[in-house]
Order: sequence, then structure tokens, then C-alpha cells
Amino acid sequence: MSTFGSLFRVTTYGESHCASVGAIIDGCPPGLPLTAQDVQVQLSRRRPGQSNLTTPAERLIQQNGITQRDEKDLVHLQSGIEHGVTLGTPIGLLVRNEDQRPKDYSETDLYPRPSHADWTYLEKYGVKASSGGGRSSARETIGRVAAGAIAEKYLKLAYGIEIVAFVSSVGKVQLPSAISPPSQVPAEDEDTVEDALSPEFVELLNTVTREQVDAQMTRCPHAETSERMVKRILRAKEANDSIGGTVTCVIRNVPSGIGEPVFDKLEAKLAHAMLSIPATKAFEIGSGFRGTQVPGSKHNDAFVQRPDGRMGTRTNWSGGVQGGISNGEDVYFRIGFKSPATISQEQETAQYDGTPGTLAARGRHDPCVVPRAVPIVEAMAALVIMDQVLIQNARKTASALLPPITTLPPTMVKNVKPAASEEQKQ
Amino acid sequence: MSTFGSLFRVTTYGESHCASVGAIIDGCPPGLPLTAQDVQVQLSRRRPGQSNLTTPAERLIQQNGITQRDEKDLVHLQSGIEHGVTLGTPIGLLVRNEDQRPKDYSETDLYPRPSHADWTYLEKYGVKASSGGGRSSARETIGRVAAGAIAEKYLKLAYGIEIVAFVSSVGKVQLPSAISPPSQVPAEDEDTVEDALSPEFVELLNTVTREQVDAQMTRCPHAETSERMVKRILRAKEANDSIGGTVTCVIRNVPSGIGEPVFDKLEAKLAHAMLSIPATKAFEIGSGFRGTQVPGSKHNDAFVQRPDGRMGTRTNWSGGVQGGISNGEDVYFRIGFKSPATISQEQETAQYDGTPGTLAARGRHDPCVVPRAVPIVEAMAALVIMDQVLIQNARKTASALLPPITTLPPTMVKNVKPAASEEQKQ
Amino acid sequence: MSTFGSLFRVTTYGESHCASVGAIIDGCPPGLPLTAQDVQVQLSRRRPGQSNLTTPAERLIQQNGITQRDEKDLVHLQSGIEHGVTLGTPIGLLVRNEDQRPKDYSETDLYPRPSHADWTYLEKYGVKASSGGGRSSARETIGRVAAGAIAEKYLKLAYGIEIVAFVSSVGKVQLPSAISPPSQVPAEDEDTVEDALSPEFVELLNTVTREQVDAQMTRCPHAETSERMVKRILRAKEANDSIGGTVTCVIRNVPSGIGEPVFDKLEAKLAHAMLSIPATKAFEIGSGFRGTQVPGSKHNDAFVQRPDGRMGTRTNWSGGVQGGISNGEDVYFRIGFKSPATISQEQETAQYDGTPGTLAARGRHDPCVVPRAVPIVEAMAALVIMDQVLIQNARKTASALLPPITTLPPTMVKNVKPAASEEQKQ
Amino acid sequence: MSTFGSLFRVTTYGESHCASVGAIIDGCPPGLPLTAQDVQVQLSRRRPGQSNLTTPAERLIQQNGITQRDEKDLVHLQSGIEHGVTLGTPIGLLVRNEDQRPKDYSETDLYPRPSHADWTYLEKYGVKASSGGGRSSARETIGRVAAGAIAEKYLKLAYGIEIVAFVSSVGKVQLPSAISPPSQVPAEDEDTVEDALSPEFVELLNTVTREQVDAQMTRCPHAETSERMVKRILRAKEANDSIGGTVTCVIRNVPSGIGEPVFDKLEAKLAHAMLSIPATKAFEIGSGFRGTQVPGSKHNDAFVQRPDGRMGTRTNWSGGVQGGISNGEDVYFRIGFKSPATISQEQETAQYDGTPGTLAARGRHDPCVVPRAVPIVEAMAALVIMDQVLIQNARKTASALLPPITTLPPTMVKNVKPAASEEQKQ
Repeated sequence: MSTFGSLFRVTTYGESHCASVGAIIDGCPPGLPLTAQDVQVQLSRRRPGQSNLTTPAERLIQQNGITQRDEKDLVHLQSGIEHGVTLGTPIGLLVRNEDQRPKDYSETDLYPRPSHADWTYLEKYGVKASSGGGRSSARETIGRVAAGAIAEKYLKLAYGIEIVAFVSSVGKVQLPSAISPPSQVPAEDEDTVEDALSPEFVELLNTVTREQVDAQMTRCPHAETSERMVKRILRAKEANDSIGGTVTCVIRNVPSGIGEPVFDKLEAKLAHAMLSIPATKAFEIGSGFRGTQVPGSKHNDAFVQRPDGRMGTRTNWSGGVQGGISNGEDVYFRIGFKSPATISQEQETAQYDGTPGTLAARGRHDPCVVPRAVPIVEAMAALVIMDQVLIQNARKTASALLPPITTLPPTMVKNVKPAASEEQKQ
Repeated sequence: MSTFGSLFRVTTYGESHCASVGAIIDGCPPGLPLTAQDVQVQLSRRRPGQSNLTTPAERLIQQNGITQRDEKDLVHLQSGIEHGVTLGTPIGLLVRNEDQRPKDYSETDLYPRPSHADWTYLEKYGVKASSGGGRSSARETIGRVAAGAIAEKYLKLAYGIEIVAFVSSVGKVQLPSAISPPSQVPAEDEDTVEDALSPEFVELLNTVTREQVDAQMTRCPHAETSERMVKRILRAKEANDSIGGTVTCVIRNVPSGIGEPVFDKLEAKLAHAMLSIPATKAFEIGSGFRGTQVPGSKHNDAFVQRPDGRMGTRTNWSGGVQGGISNGEDVYFRIGFKSPATISQEQETAQYDGTPGTLAARGRHDPCVVPRAVPIVEAMAALVIMDQVLIQNARKTASALLPPITTLPPTMVKNVKPAASEEQKQ
Repeated sequence: MSTFGSLFRVTTYGESHCASVGAIIDGCPPGLPLTAQDVQVQLSRRRPGQSNLTTPAERLIQQNGITQRDEKDLVHLQSGIEHGVTLGTPIGLLVRNEDQRPKDYSETDLYPRPSHADWTYLEKYGVKASSGGGRSSARETIGRVAAGAIAEKYLKLAYGIEIVAFVSSVGKVQLPSAISPPSQVPAEDEDTVEDALSPEFVELLNTVTREQVDAQMTRCPHAETSERMVKRILRAKEANDSIGGTVTCVIRNVPSGIGEPVFDKLEAKLAHAMLSIPATKAFEIGSGFRGTQVPGSKHNDAFVQRPDGRMGTRTNWSGGVQGGISNGEDVYFRIGFKSPATISQEQETAQYDGTPGTLAARGRHDPCVVPRAVPIVEAMAALVIMDQVLIQNARKTASALLPPITTLPPTMVKNVKPAASEEQKQ
Repeated sequence: MSTFGSLFRVTTYGESHCASVGAIIDGCPPGLPLTAQDVQVQLSRRRPGQSNLTTPAERLIQQNGITQRDEKDLVHLQSGIEHGVTLGTPIGLLVRNEDQRPKDYSETDLYPRPSHADWTYLEKYGVKASSGGGRSSARETIGRVAAGAIAEKYLKLAYGIEIVAFVSSVGKVQLPSAISPPSQVPAEDEDTVEDALSPEFVELLNTVTREQVDAQMTRCPHAETSERMVKRILRAKEANDSIGGTVTCVIRNVPSGIGEPVFDKLEAKLAHAMLSIPATKAFEIGSGFRGTQVPGSKHNDAFVQRPDGRMGTRTNWSGGVQGGISNGEDVYFRIGFKSPATISQEQETAQYDGTPGTLAARGRHDPCVVPRAVPIVEAMAALVIMDQVLIQNARKTASALLPPITTLPPTMVKNVKPAASEEQKQ
């Protein structure tokens, strides 16, 4: 369905060519300073066209503000806010669909587009939108991004949480530090495995900023790699083809204790959230698939006391999660996006009625969507963390009102201090 | 929390050392023939010890029924069934914890075990179980497997759905067909990419049976690879170490139209379900991460009419899902399990209070859990499909009661036939 | 929270003085013919002013289209519909708040209004809307009414379900047939109790139409009683006071088998839905509170075969529900609405800071809201039935795909016929 | 379905004649001291037989421990607790069904019992339990009562919340103070209405204890009325008939701010919870139906500062709720229970196949269930309050971490103090 979250809950609506797309955000903490601009920033980062890889001539047009598919995407906040402060009531918001162009796609109507959702939507609903992607269009993500921006603002203010996503690969062009070079991969009967993640990549995770990400057209914060990604994308564009990639996201300053075992573990909700983004096919947290090859003796994250007295772990192959619960280390994960299904080549396929034939796509299309996916990934990450922070706070506040536990051995208990004020009791 | 699903809903309880573990399955269709044996089969497949890789002497002991950690795991159905048929009311079930041995672990109580959930559970709840994994123990999965067995029985009877999971890698030992050999990986600027999945692997997905899987000690249905996996596991065992791996699962005969965009897409719910299994770190569907490197022109699944008149796709890189909705092709996905955190080596780490020290684990532990994970993966897959089948049936039945749509162009509509009997109307 | 329903789900937003109020309806069956007019009809029925009891001069003004508080309430459908047919995707809709008049209420800002939600909203959220009722305003019900109109249209088309609500009392003015006259109430030690509901009232339930309801200014379909209600309301108006009342609702042609024990029984969900309407304080189904006084021998609804072969009950004191499940008889229930808290009299009360004082309300206010509540009650009834019909259809379709039960005694089984077409299996 | 609650969530299972009935309680705050005895107390209060109205001979048998239908109902806690303290993980519990007697009812199998759920269960599920009430049996409430006892213990310890329910009427025998005597009911055109609730009843609500309730066989805490109720019940018993009644419940020390508008208002959730109890037909909060007859000027609850500085209301016709949110006053409400459908008289009715005939019930049956319903009402009340307290705490803790609001007028803001300790932030 179109609702995500339990205490912080977003519900979205909207197809690619209807009057508007929008969302209702329910459960936002009251008292949060919030303006349309807070939301607009992320909406603008997800807009098509602006980070698109373009020819110099096109780039010139862009610089003059006339982008190819300028959807504008101005958000209109409807409710839940007065004098710039949230009321705790649902926040309604919408973005008008200005470009409805239903005719653009009409000539190819006899064909379900390969690897698109045309055919499955018709199978599921028995009826489908006449034009474009309908509900499966990337425009649907506008509601998510808007909701995520609100969650992110809260998390930043209340916990100093930072969420930074970036492009880690386009096709076979990878951040060089992301994985060990093939030459270092030992034979399978050797035990001298290297770490699944290189020290350089860990350093990147620890430090990368959103500004560094946006400084590159590809949103890959490593200039040299970004250059190669640009070439790869342009090659796809010139071939009327498309190419996929991966986005990595790091969340810093997540409080420990977040995540709701056994079914709503932090990584499970993150995976759910990420795989609900259009075109995603894969998710891994921490060392991920590569970590499965590292023996426990090298993969375990040993504990160490931090200078500030807090417990931490010496390494972080776990990606900040143990047993489905955050441990206070950075949470990081990677998402795979398939190559866009819309290409400008002819494709041998079949019509809805089974007749074989050739589908020739028209119009301009993004040859690579991962740069635009960055703010969407950040938004979904914020929604997951926000919801689980609220649930965990309900539990901790509840426990804090109970008398201290005195009957258990000390290693079984970490007594929560009683809340300080009467305020908390209500 | 401990509930999964909306219309077919499982809620579980139980720690590693309490009186019992169990589950309530709510929403099971009435009229399903069901016995304890239906459930027991899968519970026995997930039991520790039986598929454990052991020395010949130990194997002898096992054959005589005295396994190392024989938890027996006999299921006791409590409700919801009469005369072998489900009533549609909640099915309560439980498995007694016979082996509670709280002392086994007591000497190491000062240390949170690295990469275990000891520390995060204490952070989250302020109190934790005294022994073993508590709620984070693999015993928790008994409730899932029992519920999944019930869902699977329904899906088999009603739709002929087959769910088969198998071990696809242990450490670096992989099914040879699972990925292209490294030598075939072209340079990143070449466009002659091979398919992300080899034809041999696709053939395996199409045909592998549960019997073939169980024929191998490792549950890898390829004898030669299984042998190498055995060696890899024994090497970990001898080194008092552990090793991870991956499980691949295929679901056949999934009806088209399953999956609930935009947030509860089929792949999103599968990812959620799989990442909620203990020790999982990664999920990919279809061509997954490798597919991100394949251009759209080669990755798109073209449509083709099947001999029986149904529409299908020529290839299935999508893994049976488009736009979050099943397309009738096989659904397949892969899950990464980290190396078990419990090892019998000394580990340099810190106590709960931050004091550095050395933790020396005791007792026997599974050096590799992926063979046991196979039925757990199948169970979670069954739970996801079951729930989404019910939701989609609600929609289709509802639409079938409406008059045919006559005002839309034919490519927008696939009119659902009106239900045949008055029965359907109620 | 602001979401209601599981498979047919409405989420609303909006305060009394923000940009708009609106809703997202998720889970609407695809293929439903739907226009803005379908929704507008019920929205217009709930508008203030039109059914307001007014002086002749005011009535004249109304007839010329210049109503006192003409909120217009034009609905704008945003998504989920194409060419007049629902797509199965979320339906976004909104109604602009044209009359925001934040100053009207400002002079009394120091006082939380007695029996209003001013004080509790501030306690709950720590911040509240500056003007009017904020989220607790009756404007919030616009989203419900819009969603209910959509559900109602489906239920009418697919099942012939009719939902008719009407005003059954205003103050002490009751539909004469609603309860036995006091003189007929026997002493408590007599056993000659009359039925809790008179035959005349049962007849009214069986036959009343929405047209008959709307023919009376009070929406009480009994002209003579309506006249007395008008007088009662005018007396409250002249006294700058207010008066409460009750609304009775009947739902006809509900299929048997609706309702989800044990927690989501049909009457439980109806009660939940009705008590979520502003100003409601009471709910009873069937014979309700009065029925508790009738011995079982007189209160039991005996079974009888209908001429058409279907089973029915001779009486219907149960209100169409047994064990939380509909039995195919009319479902009827009654809701109590308190007297509006906003009155134009001075009230001795206290300011937010505790200072005692006198609050003098300003402006015009509805002296009685029950006439306007009628479409809101109908809407909430439609939402409950719609959601439970979908859930039950999921179950029945699932059972229909199983082999017939042959092992149970015939009184335990009513075999559902297998679905007729392959269509149903997908 | 069989799950109630969002953050504090109970799921139940069990029919009248299966192996056991039980529940899983998920979301219980960790650190709560809890023993089986805490749960057993309320389970024993709901047991049939003990508070049954019996002949002196039967009473003698009871005193010797041989009650008519001694179901024992010993609770077995399975998980979620160690050393007498909750772990925050799900609490599994069960009560064995020792008395399964499937034959007792078998002779009447051809008849669906009038006003029972036999017929509707068969309509809904297509199959039903062979004996007794199946899932619609009162035994189902054991899981609720157990869960409620746990919630109640928490609420008492953390907030000093007291929940006391009592029988307020049996048939026409009412607590004299519950309503104004008929002679005081003025004509409908007079405006000298008395309050809907008498001062004596309000005093009773303010002071009644569970001990006073249990001191009376009927659980009506007014000795003289209880005597008359006993007579009424015995008269029903002698006539092989049954009689209904009402239960009133008061909840004291509810913190202000509880309740989740707009759909999950406190009264809406209470109504939902109460109407899910078997045999309930009506719910009213505060002045309820009678309050609809009182003009706003008399019904409004004016504010007044309490001696301790807290705001309160002079009267409490609202029942402790404004706008769906608790205001700190006592929450009280009344539930109507119909006369039990099982009677030992012959009833003219029809068989499942429509054949008319006479059903002669056998065995002993409770002529009046309201005394036993008292702990069930308390349990459901506790579950509602518990869940909403947790949700509101999540919100308040979230707001407390934000900077104080400085931009709003003071009447719009009640700044929540920042949490005192770092503890709260995690």
C-alpha cells in the first residue's frame, strides 16, 4: 500500500500525469521549526534534468534555467504548521504536475514496455493509467522525499543525525576504494582474506559530506571516479542505451538501541524502505555480500571504550547494527539500481495481445538514474530512523518510570534513570 | 515488533532459555488440511546438529539419535484446527525448550560478545536475558518456520507454488554457475558484458528440488561444490573459527499481480522478511548487484507469448518482479549471511564497563549456519507470498463485482470476469 | 492517528484555518466509475448553513445562495482516477479552506473553551493552532465524508448496500416510535417487558430512504417529530444555548460473514468509527442499552427460512450482528452527540494560567449539529463495511481455491464453491 | 483479527475446546516486576462459577472447592520474563483447556443456536468448531484478561492509575444513583433538566474500590441494589431464562494528553475495545446518551485551578475526554451486555438447512454474565490506556528534544522541558 511507518507515517498519492502528487505526514513531533524551503531543498535535488549528464550545448541551456524536463516541483504545504512550527497534526503537502503531455507516449500503446511496470500494473489492477509510468513513475517519489526532509530536519535538530548518500558505482565504474581490487582476491583455500571494505572506503564513509557529493555531477564524491562515471553515462546516452549503478548511504550519530526485533530489525526496515524505491534490486548493510566470505575471527567487531567513556567497536563491519539494533556506530548500506528500462533503441518484444513486434521508444530519457536517486535514498533512510527512534523513545520513557531493578545480576541490567520532571510522566 | 504480515499474520515469542518458543498464526484460510507433521517437517530441517558438519565419530553419535545439540523441537498445535482442518481462527503452537543450560555461558558474563546482540539488547531494553542469545537466538526462528510451513502448504494446494532455497556459497566457495568466472569480466570500458547470471545457474533455478537440496550435507545441490563447501566449513571448525555464505531461493508458479506498491512492493517485503532473519546482511533479487552493470538494452526482459497463450518474458533478469508486482515468472533472490559471531577463539575486546580484556568462548558452536538457514528462508518467503496473495485476492474479487469498464481504450483495461456464483458476493 | 482502515484506508489532514483539508484514499478497488460529483453530493450534505435552523430572514438569504458560513467545500480530485474510472492507486483529494478568519476568535485567546479541545490539544502537543478548532474542528470530517462517499458508491454497485442515517432525537424530543412510552415500562419485578424497540421503529428502519431524511430540515424523517425538533433547536438558539441529539443509521443488504473477531468485530469497528466523530459520546447497536433489560427468551433472534431460501431471523434485536459477524439482516445502530460546546452565553471558567474569569463567546454557532452529522455517520459506516468486505473476500477467495472438506460432519462445513474462472486464481 | 494495540500489542488464540487458550503480549516495557500471580488474580476473577449466583446447596459445594464449572484457568508464563522482571520481549502465556466435553452439545448439532455465533461463524469461515462456542466462547477472553493484568500492573506502578469496573444494572435493577428517577424527568419543553448523572453516582465513581466491588456477589458495590440484582438473576435462573445488564468502569489518574485524534481518539479506542467483548451491545462515555438531552450551558465542564496548581474541570460530564484526548479527570464509561443467548428453554427456530423445529438446550448456563464481565472490562480498559500512554510518550519525548518554541504567542505553546539526562536521548 501507500503508507510507510507506524508512529511517523507517510502516505503518498499521485501518478505521473494526474493533477498533483502529494503526501500526508502523520506523527511529526510538534514544535519542529519547518518551512517549505526545508522540503524544497531535497525536492530540487531529486528533480530530473539538473544533475543530468548533458552535452555542452544542453548544459548551457540548463545554466540559463531552461532545463530539458524542468518539472519545477514546488511544494505546497497545506496543514499541520503554523507560524513556521509543526502542530503535531498531519502535514498535507502537494506538488502540481505541470507537464502532463499524455500524447508523448501514445503511439506505443499497443506494447507493454519491457522491464517496465505497464504489464504488471494491468495484471494487478485490471486497468492502468493511460500515459507514462502512472503510479510506477519516479514522480511518485516526490512524496517520500518531502516526508524524508521533514524527518531529517527533526533528526538533525534532536540528535545531530547526519544522512549522506552518494553514488558508489555506475556500471562497472566503482569507487576504487569500495572493494579490494581483483588482484588482491586470494584463492578460496587461502585464509589471508583482506577486509571486505578497504580502509579508504571506511574513511570516506566517516567523512563524506552532502556538499562533497553535490560538487560532482554524478554525485560520486571522488572526482576522478566521477569523471569516469560521466564517460560511462555519456557512452550509454550515445548508444541510446542506459546503465545502472549503486548508491551508498551512511547515517551518523544514530543513537544506540534503535530497531525493533524480531521482524522490524533496523536492517530489515532499511531494506524494506530501499527496495521500495523504483528500479532497486539489491541491498546490503555493513560488509554485505562480501562480508560473508570473511571468517568470524576477522569479521567480529571487538568492543572498545571510547575516549568519551562510551562503548564503541574497533571495526564496523556490522554497519552499525547488531541483532537488528543500532550500536551507536555509523549505519551504512548500499543499494543497487538496475539500468533504466526506458531506452531509445528498438526492442523485439510482444504486444499486450501477444503479437510479436518491435517497440521503438521515443523522446529523451535519463540514461542513468543513480545521481537523482541520492536524495530519495536519504529520504527513505530518514523515514526509517525517525519511526524507530519514536518507538524506542516510547519504550525508554516507559521503563524510566519504573522503579530501578535490584534483583538481577549487574550484567543483565542497565538501569535507566527515572525521568527528571513531572512533565515526562504525562 | 514480533508480528509479521497483515492478513496472514504471524506473531512469535520466546527466548533461547525460557519455557517454550511459539507463535500465533492469524488469518489462515479456513478449510486447509493441516497436521502437526506438516509443520514438523520444516522444523526438523532447521534443527541444529542434523545437517551440521561433523567428524565421523560425531556422525556416528548422530545416527544413533544422540546429536550434539538435539533440541528435538516437537511442535504442539494448540488451536485453530479440528479434525485436521483449519477453522480460520488463530493457530497457536509451541515448541518446548528442553535444554535450558543457563550455566554454560555464565563465566563470560562480564563481556558482551563481539558482533553478538548482548550489548545492543542491553542498550535497547535496559535489561537482558541471562543466558545465551535470549530473543536474538536462532531458536526464535522456530515460530517463523512453523508459520511458513502452514503458508507453504496453502500456497502449494491453492496455486501449486513451489519454494526451494539452497546454499549458493560458503565463504568464497560458490556454485560455479552463479557468477561469471573472473576471467570473463571485461574491462569497464568494454561493452561486451556477459549476462549477470550464467545459463547454468538459470537452469538450476528452473529445476532444483528440495530433495536435491537435502541430498547434500551442505544443502548446496551441486555435489562437487558441496564437497568443497564441506572442506571450507571443516577448515573453519578446525581453526575454531566460523564462515558465512549465501542462500538463494526460487519461488515458482507465483501468480502475476502480487505485490503492493508503492511501499509494499514484492521485493521490498521479501527484503524486509529476509533481513529480519538472524545474521543476514544482504539481499538481492533477480540479477541484483551484478545486474546494475548490464546496460538496459541487454537487461530488459522482452515479452513473448507462451505456448499456453499466457504472456511471459524471454529472459528473467528481473527475478519475476516489475514495478514491485509479480509478472508470473519465477521469483528468485539471494541472501547473505555473515560468519557466525560465536567462535572458540580468544578475542581481544572489552567488558560491559569498558575494561579491556580477553574473551574466551566455550562450548561447541556451528561454524556455518547457512545449511540450517535454508528452511528459514523458505518460511519467510512463504509468509510474504501468502500475505500478498490474500491482499491481491481481496482486490480482484472486489473488482470482479463491478460492471465491465467500457469507457477506456482497450490497452488500459483487462476486464476481470464477474464472479460466477452468488457465493463470491458474500 | 489520522488513518482509518486496513485494506480500504483513508488518511486525512487539515485544520480549520489552514490552506486546505483533504484525504488520501488507498485501496479503492480498480474499475469503479467515479466522478467528483459522487463525492460532492455528500460533502454538500455535511456543509454548515444549508440544513441549519434559521430565522425566516436568514432563510431568505440562504435561498439566495448567501449562506451564513458558506464554506463551499468543492472537492478537487487529484489522482487515482482516469476517464472517470478508478485505477486502484491512491485517490488524493482536497477541499480549500476559503474562510480562514483567524481574528474572529482572537479576543478570547486567554481562555481554553470549556468542553472544547483547546486545553487538551495544548496538553497533548505542547502547541496548538491559533484559531478555531484547529484539527478538532468539524472541518476535519470533510476527508471522512469524501472517502465514505467513494466506499458507498462501491458498496452500492457491488452489493446493493444502502446506508441511511437520520436524526432520531434532539434533546428530549424523540422519534415517538424509538422507545416504548414510559407508561409502558413495567416495574422491575415484572416479566412482561415490551420489546426494547417498537414495531413502528423497526418499520422505519426497514423502509426509510435518504430522500425522506433530506425532506425534513432536521433530517428526522418523521414530519411531526421534526417540527418539535425545530422548535427545540430554535429555543436553544434563542437562549444562546445548544442542544445535543442522536443519529440512527441502518445499513441494508450487508452480506453475511462480515466482521473480524475477536478484536475487530463488526460492532467494535463501527463503535470505533462512530466515536471518532467529533462530539460523539455514545454508541449502541441493535436493541442496545434497552435490550439489556430484556430476558434472553424474548431477546434471542430465532432463525427462519426466507421465501428465497436464505436463512434469516424472525426478529432482529441483534442489529444484524452475531458474534461480531454480520448475519445478513439489517445492521442498525444509534450514536449520541453531546450539545455543542460553543455557546453564546457567558461562562464562568478559568484562563490557561488558572486565573478564574468569564468567557464570552462571539459569533454565530450551530445550536445543534445532529442534522449535519447524518452524512458523516453514513461515511464512517461505509468505511467500516468497505474494509471488512474486502478482508472477508480475501478469506473466501482463498478458501474457494482449496479442495472441498470431506472429513467433517456436515453441520461443521459449508463448502465454498471453487471459483469459476482462472481469473480468480491470480 | 486477533491482535489489539500498536505499541503494546496483544494477540490471542484459542477455542472453547482446543488444547489451550493463550496470548502473546508484545511491547511490554522492560523492567516491570511481574509474576504469574499478578496475572492469575484477574484470571480467577473472570472464572465462571465463583461469582455465579447459586442455591445454598450449590454454594456449599463451591465453598468446598467443587464448583460447577471449575475451569481452574492456571496461567503458564512462557517467555519474556527472567527473575521476575520483564525483558521487553514478547510474553507468551497459556491456560490449558481441561474441560473439553465435546459431547455435551452434540445432540443439538442440527440447529444453529439463536443469537449465538454458530451460524455466522459458518457463514464467515465455511467451517466451524464442532462444540460449544468455539472461538466465540467466553474462554477467548482469558488472553485479554491476562494481557490486561500486565498492562494494569505497569500503569499502577508508573502512574498510579486505578481501574475499577462494577455492575451498574441487571435487567431493570439499576444503581439508584445511576440515573435520575423517572419522576424527575421533566417534560421536553421544560428547561429545568437535571444533570444526567446524579451526585451520588459521581461520588461512587470517585471513590469505589475493587474490594468494595468484590464484596458483593453481583459485583455491584451497593449492597441494597446488589440484593435486588441477586433476586433478579435468581428469577431468571428459575425460569430457565437469562438477563443482561451494564458494567460501569472508572479509570483514575489518567495523565492528560492521552488519545490519538482523529481516528484513534481515546473514547473511540475504548468503544472499540469494549464492543469487542462477547455479548456487548452498547457503550457510552461520560454523560453518554442522557447527556445529549442537556443543553451546552449546563453540560460544558468549566475549568478551575486545583489546589495543587493543576488545571481541572468543575464538573466532568465529558468523562475525562475532550476532543478525543484525556484531560486528567476520571475517565468513566458504561457498557451494555445483552442477556445470554444460551437458555434452558425450548426455542422455536430452524435447523441449518432451514427446517423449522424446536431447540431444547441442555446443561447449566450462566443466567447473567455481567459479574464475570467486570475483570474483562478492566482488562480492555488497561490495554487501551497502556497503548495510548506509550504513543503519547513517544511524542512528548520527541518534542522535549527540540529547542523551545519562541515564535508563537504564549497561549499557543506549552513548552515541554528538555529531558534531563543524556539517557533520554538514546
